[in-house]
Amino acid sequence: MLNIKTPTLVLDLGICRQNIRQMNVKANESKAFFRPHFKTHQSAAIGEWFREEGISAITVSSVSMAEYFANHSWKDITIAFPVNLLELDKINELASRIQINLLIESEETANFLSKKLLASCGFFIKIDTGYHRTGIDSGDIVLIDKVLKSANPAKLHFKGFLTHSGNSYHAKNKAELQQISQHTTNELLKLKKKYQAKFPNLILSVGDTPTCSQLQIPEGIDEIRPGNFVFYDVMQFALGSCLLENIAVALVCPVVAIHTNRSEAVIYGGAIHLSKEHASLLPYPGPIFGLAVSWDGNKWDTGNLLGFVKALSQEHGIIKITKTDCRLKPGDLVAILPVHSCLTGQLMRKYYTLDGEVIETLNS
Amino acid sequence: MLNIKTPTLVLDLGICRQNIRQMNVKANESKAFFRPHFKTHQSAAIGEWFREEGISAITVSSVSMAEYFANHSWKDITIAFPVNLLELDKINELASRIQINLLIESEETANFLSKKLLASCGFFIKIDTGYHRTGIDSGDIVLIDKVLKSANPAKLHFKGFLTHSGNSYHAKNKAELQQISQHTTNELLKLKKKYQAKFPNLILSVGDTPTCSQLQIPEGIDEIRPGNFVFYDVMQFALGSCLLENIAVALVCPVVAIHTNRSEAVIYGGAIHLSKEHASLLPYPGPIFGLAVSWDGNKWDTGNLLGFVKALSQEHGIIKITKTDCRLKPGDLVAILPVHSCLTGQLMRKYYTLDGEVIETLNS
Repeated sequence: MLNIKTPTLVLDLGICRQNIRQMNVKANESKAFFRPHFKTHQSAAIGEWFREEGISAITVSSVSMAEYFANHSWKDITIAFPVNLLELDKINELASRIQINLLIESEETANFLSKKLLASCGFFIKIDTGYHRTGIDSGDIVLIDKVLKSANPAKLHFKGFLTHSGNSYHAKNKAELQQISQHTTNELLKLKKKYQAKFPNLILSVGDTPTCSQLQIPEGIDEIRPGNFVFYDVMQFALGSCLLENIAVALVCPVVAIHTNRSEAVIYGGAIHLSKEHASLLPYPGPIFGLAVSWDGNKWDTGNLLGFVKALSQEHGIIKITKTDCRLKPGDLVAILPVHSCLTGQLMRKYYTLDGEVIETLNS
Repeated sequence: MLNIKTPTLVLDLGICRQNIRQMNVKANESKAFFRPHFKTHQSAAIGEWFREEGISAITVSSVSMAEYFANHSWKDITIAFPVNLLELDKINELASRIQINLLIESEETANFLSKKLLASCGFFIKIDTGYHRTGIDSGDIVLIDKVLKSANPAKLHFKGFLTHSGNSYHAKNKAELQQISQHTTNELLKLKKKYQAKFPNLILSVGDTPTCSQLQIPEGIDEIRPGNFVFYDVMQFALGSCLLENIAVALVCPVVAIHTNRSEAVIYGGAIHLSKEHASLLPYPGPIFGLAVSWDGNKWDTGNLLGFVKALSQEHGIIKITKTDCRLKPGDLVAILPVHSCLTGQLMRKYYTLDGEVIETLNS
């Protein structure tokens, strides 16, 4: 039983496990290998729920996250982040005991690793198909060839091409999302066609929650790496990737003041709990920082939407009350569905189940 | 000596102590009592540097922060946040051993505390002079009287009126800032005039870094509570509260990729390190998430501005390089001046001095 006095991140186990099962079924129905990204939950215990569904290989976004999961018996980990050369020692240590796959997007990095790696690693060439955050432009064959040439096969085993279509987060509707996914797939398939003779086992790896949730896994894609779906959040709801009922975490917060004249409630729950991530969601004006739903002491109720979080400062949140007969008062609790569950999870460092059990994370 | 391999929050002791001294001198030159807000640094060790300047009373923004500093020998603490009634037990425990001042803005809270407090606390009535986040409207004498009437003087000792003019962060220039400060002062002085006969020792307490840094402390103000000035940040620089040279913290980050064609560097350093807070700063287009300056292995150099952080995801930061002869490569380090040092400090949990010494915080 939960006895909440300060902002507390509550996890609904049933919803979370259903999200995991559902994505796993979808991957199995396609021909894609499912290598979920663990950066959203960062928890060994939640990792076990994936293992129970048959998952054996994972994705992480930092060397320290790889280390944490390696220490929890994961033996095949892709670090989906451009290699941080300064962490060579830790990478060597990890590669000496498990399968580690790295992301390379420059000759410098390929040369450095070819010289300095002590144990062999897999590597993907990070490809940019339009997001323009990281990666080699999918048309830049010259640079791809240079990287392949620089990579010493005794140290670096080429696994394939990997992309993250983060531009899917800017798609205005499903048709646009489909276009982005189609473009990414086409670009990757061109690369596969070009390099398959030389590398017959090369893998095309994609993965972002909007496309993996909303669309079929495209033919020819070998691996998917979504992560956020484990919890989902208001941003994914706004994008059409999930229903509010699929969101598995809520920040339960004390109400500390009510301003009836402007239909606002002030909560203890701010940027240090939710993060300053915001989303646009009709019919709300301007950016929102969360959705407020009722909390009955045991669970939250997405059917009882009280309002939206209109502003956050360090520890304060301001809820604009939209429900007409809402009767909040200081000392009450409300549940906030977060805009970005990855960042909220990182900030809160652990989860409490509805039964009051603590689930630790890398950051606990 | 610092040996940095992952994003690391570095603190320049000299700058920090100068910021503390300077604000203390300013408070002493006015008639205002200096009760600094400790929510920015949240560190017992940094608290001692204030103590060395003669500071004896502080402000915090949560009960747990009050507990932490009470455990580090601070005996007079204002919790500048509407009372969280659910934390009554901890408040009682704290009030039994030190002077605790609470913020009240409703009859319900005054009634609740009048009944339930076991030891006496001071209290301020939180006044809203235009920020509209929390507090009773400065003109709402009816509600102020109700709160005063509800507060049992055996439990709740009335200290005065407290406001936070957070709207100062929206001032477009010094003249606007002056107007906001003048309005706040006038409203508070009206209240003082009205209630001083009954409460001859009542205090007017204000405090935000922009007005305390840029303007003279107004006549008639009894107490100031700025906090951010201890480190300052890019937001304060953008507001004109400090120079870049006054910013006492920088996040030192590894460079992991370079995209020369679009003049961008990718760093290991994202929203989980810096926070997603952003600021507008001419001449940069759109919001910025930090300023990148050079790091020579021992210190950062605000005279060598490399570019600005144009985007952040969970662990990635994208620097738009503006310096023409900038020659960054993977494996280099750059220093990011954060937009909001309070949030960056909270996320990073500890500071490293330029000498490599660790400074712990409440969150370590």
